[in-house]
Amino acid sequence: MNIALDMMGGDYAPLETIKGVKLFLSENNKYDVDLTLIGDENKLIPLINEHEITAENITVVHASEVIEMQEHPTKALKEKQQSSISIGFHLLASGKTDAFISAGNTGAMMVGSLYSIKAITGVARPAIGAYIPGEDGKLSLLVDVGLNADCKPENLAQFALLGSLFAKYILNDENPRVALINVGEEEGKGNILCQATYPLLKENQRINFVGNVEGRDLLMGKAEIYICDGYTGNVILKFAESIYDIVQKRKIDDEYFNRFNFEMYGGVPVLGVNKPVIIGHGISTAGAFNNMILMAKKMIEQDFIEKIKKNFV
Amino acid sequence: MNIALDMMGGDYAPLETIKGVKLFLSENNKYDVDLTLIGDENKLIPLINEHEITAENITVVHASEVIEMQEHPTKALKEKQQSSISIGFHLLASGKTDAFISAGNTGAMMVGSLYSIKAITGVARPAIGAYIPGEDGKLSLLVDVGLNADCKPENLAQFALLGSLFAKYILNDENPRVALINVGEEEGKGNILCQATYPLLKENQRINFVGNVEGRDLLMGKAEIYICDGYTGNVILKFAESIYDIVQKRKIDDEYFNRFNFEMYGGVPVLGVNKPVIIGHGISTAGAFNNMILMAKKMIEQDFIEKIKKNFV
Repeated sequence: MNIALDMMGGDYAPLETIKGVKLFLSENNKYDVDLTLIGDENKLIPLINEHEITAENITVVHASEVIEMQEHPTKALKEKQQSSISIGFHLLASGKTDAFISAGNTGAMMVGSLYSIKAITGVARPAIGAYIPGEDGKLSLLVDVGLNADCKPENLAQFALLGSLFAKYILNDENPRVALINVGEEEGKGNILCQATYPLLKENQRINFVGNVEGRDLLMGKAEIYICDGYTGNVILKFAESIYDIVQKRKIDDEYFNRFNFEMYGGVPVLGVNKPVIIGHGISTAGAFNNMILMAKKMIEQDFIEKIKKNFV
Repeated sequence: MNIALDMMGGDYAPLETIKGVKLFLSENNKYDVDLTLIGDENKLIPLINEHEITAENITVVHASEVIEMQEHPTKALKEKQQSSISIGFHLLASGKTDAFISAGNTGAMMVGSLYSIKAITGVARPAIGAYIPGEDGKLSLLVDVGLNADCKPENLAQFALLGSLFAKYILNDENPRVALINVGEEEGKGNILCQATYPLLKENQRINFVGNVEGRDLLMGKAEIYICDGYTGNVILKFAESIYDIVQKRKIDDEYFNRFNFEMYGGVPVLGVNKPVIIGHGISTAGAFNNMILMAKKMIEQDFIEKIKKNFV
């Protein structure tokens, strides 16, 4: 398998991406995975040599441009064809690589996923899942956290299935519980979207729907998959991220709140597109890149995209 | 002025409501405020005597029923006419009292506010504001946190004005900043609701609109008033409340996170109805009831309802 990594994406790239590659190679059988490292070769080659990364299963693909964090995604992707993200999607779409990882411009990664890799047939709206640390020590997946600000009930129902498949095949959870984020537990509660989504989730035999949960339940391990529209999910995720910033600032060293360091989970998968795409946090360091490579490896090993396709026939 | 208190509302009622009344009377000039205590007189009278509350400016109004926390609001209000909440709204609507406070069934308090007290002419949808503790030590107000699961742009624009007036007259903030909760800072970001609301807020000369904020900004003192639909606000508020539960459980004693104890703020005002109504947290103790009486007192002193009416002519 061949996993491509945008070496220029993220606040600490390319140094931390290089370190992440080295970490991955040191911990894994290097002959399992070929890595395609996309970026400015004038910067990458010296770093590769400096970090004594052996070249056997490493290919450097030169990218003369970088899409900066603040650039407009669609515009940048169109105008910067030689950027590491553009080249990454080109290699992935043409089958030269099997997965693509970047901690660069999140919007460009979303747009590239949707327009270059495209949604799996039957998936109306791909979504992004993010880990939420439960107080019980487990992780839940929050879907969607930003691809779809406005959703229809059918979209949320598909997010539930996409999330369940990810939990099953990537997180090894055979029967993940799905809950709908709402303002009350009873059926019939909530906004029009939730009211219309509930029966769709309830009647869906492919998921293990356990009902509505409230904001107070999200950290309490009430479900493995929490479903909401991308606007709400994005606000929740960023709110939770800010908790970690505050915990750090206030020098609170607590085992649980340390798990609010979302970087430790690597990146978030784009669920429902035709190839494995993983979007990293801007502040990703070596450990995060290593975790993203491992997630991509598992998605390929599990033939995860095919599993989704079968469920959306 | 006459402030009515539902003595039976809340997990620790009537003991903590009695203690709250005693606390208020001990700290304030008792001749300023007459208190109407609504509840089961067989329980209240012994408690009043036991706590040596002098009877001069206290009137006990007997209520033979209580709307329990889990009852259906509309049904309970209709069937339990002799409940403390029903009687409280009756006294308020008929002008016998000037404000009503309860930590009982939240839904019943909302329904009573909307149907017994009714919206101020010009206010399409009343809303509930909740305090959010900023990391800078200040408080912000989050509107709406649950009255309106589905909102139109015009509703959010009105929440912004209602919140601003509350901040100005009750929190003494002359020029409170208003921000729209969104998934990105730029105008044009977000779901259809946010996209349509932004220009309404921007062009409104009566508020100090400072733009969009993201979930990560809510605790960072970016604005005094954060605006969103009641579904999103409810999820955020309850998520934040759960942080405090976890902080307590993990025995983290931090000055900032202790301010996530939402009970310390007393209750939340119903903004946009014709009389001051304050809804308390179920777990309210004496301090919370004292704070709610103080909030009601200030709303009456400031002639807050008239101030709103003038702004919605």
